[in-house]
Amino acid sequence: MKRLKCVIAYDGTHFEGYQRQPEKRTIQGEVEKVLMKMHKGEMIPIFASGRTDAHVHAKGQVIHFDSPLEIPEDRWKIALNTLLPSDIVVVTTEEVPSDFHARFSVKGKEYHYYISLKKDRDPFMRNYYYHFPHPLHFQKMEKAAKYLVGTYDFTSFCSAKTEVKDRIRTIESLTLIQEGDQLIIKIKGTGFLYNMVRIIVGTLLEVGTGKREPEEIPRIIEAKDRMQAGKTVPGHGLYLYKVYY
Amino acid sequence: MKRLKCVIAYDGTHFEGYQRQPEKRTIQGEVEKVLMKMHKGEMIPIFASGRTDAHVHAKGQVIHFDSPLEIPEDRWKIALNTLLPSDIVVVTTEEVPSDFHARFSVKGKEYHYYISLKKDRDPFMRNYYYHFPHPLHFQKMEKAAKYLVGTYDFTSFCSAKTEVKDRIRTIESLTLIQEGDQLIIKIKGTGFLYNMVRIIVGTLLEVGTGKREPEEIPRIIEAKDRMQAGKTVPGHGLYLYKVYY
Repeated sequence: MKRLKCVIAYDGTHFEGYQRQPEKRTIQGEVEKVLMKMHKGEMIPIFASGRTDAHVHAKGQVIHFDSPLEIPEDRWKIALNTLLPSDIVVVTTEEVPSDFHARFSVKGKEYHYYISLKKDRDPFMRNYYYHFPHPLHFQKMEKAAKYLVGTYDFTSFCSAKTEVKDRIRTIESLTLIQEGDQLIIKIKGTGFLYNMVRIIVGTLLEVGTGKREPEEIPRIIEAKDRMQAGKTVPGHGLYLYKVYY
Repeated sequence: MKRLKCVIAYDGTHFEGYQRQPEKRTIQGEVEKVLMKMHKGEMIPIFASGRTDAHVHAKGQVIHFDSPLEIPEDRWKIALNTLLPSDIVVVTTEEVPSDFHARFSVKGKEYHYYISLKKDRDPFMRNYYYHFPHPLHFQKMEKAAKYLVGTYDFTSFCSAKTEVKDRIRTIESLTLIQEGDQLIIKIKGTGFLYNMVRIIVGTLLEVGTGKREPEEIPRIIEAKDRMQAGKTVPGHGLYLYKVYY
């Protein structure tokens, strides 16, 4: 039995999220369907670094699975890509020791959030950028971002539905890159709570438009109350960029 | 009655081409549906610079229509964009004299064809680039391109189904721009026959892979036989970039 680690990328537009669900098109569902074909009808469960929501994209999601097949390490990628639909691709595959776990071995993750600042909507960006055609005060957003870097209880920045009790996480870096009418927010940390990146981006945008001041961030963190932070921005601007092990 | 000229852009992925067809989702169908709403159920036909095929994109398609509505010139764009689906957008609108015709007044057109040379397929490019993961000899392609610039009978480079009898067209420029693993082919001319850009690109790619030599191009033109030219590349890499009047 061999354990395979795969880095996969997907365009989340036509998926109802990562996790397998009956009757719905999901990443897990599509990958497991391909593995089942390769294993003569046997179900091979896959394990991911974490779920992604509906319409969220990935450039570097990581999964693992165990297989009895005698396929050389470098042939796995080709075999999978031949069978996978065009909106999922295997970027790399490698054999890993059996104590590697795509989820439990995670050391950190990096997400990117893409925003289009164009005045008009752009049909080619509609599934890949959040369209936010409002003037933004970047310096204030950068100042607010600095307050979020560090180790905090991020209860204010996760969905009220979050079930995990320990909401202490570390954000290692949070940078804004503006080029023309595009803004990319890059965030790297040890782990993220449910909707955390999307609520952080939503809060930063409210600072950018002047609805909030950067200096309010410490108070929002301290409140441990989802109602104190900004809106959750849509999933289609979000990319799971890289998982660190 | 006022005549409005609109530059429109669309992501062709989810359209079965430009032209209105019963039961099918087309650009013309969607725009006319919106105009009908604005005109209390009255049908307002639109006229385009020309058709585009299924999955072909446009950054600068031009249409015109006549309307009795008293809407200020600069409000038309907003009114239309509010009602149009997210994969079509009006870029500019302007009132034009009644002798302007989106099709008959055309002086020239510019098309771009996007090719991804990446070894692996990229899920984010699948609908917007033709994936061609083969080594290409760019110098040879550029040499072949030069033979195509000029005024010729392009019978060899149009679909065998083409009904127009006069196949003499002028290609004003044909340039290849390679950046990293992307190749963009830009072609500008007075007019194009059915599938002409896609057959030219297909023929240039066959030169790039060594299947043909650049010096064969004059003979192919002279043959006036569709069988002599290369394959028709897929529609999803093609963009109607600009229409000149």
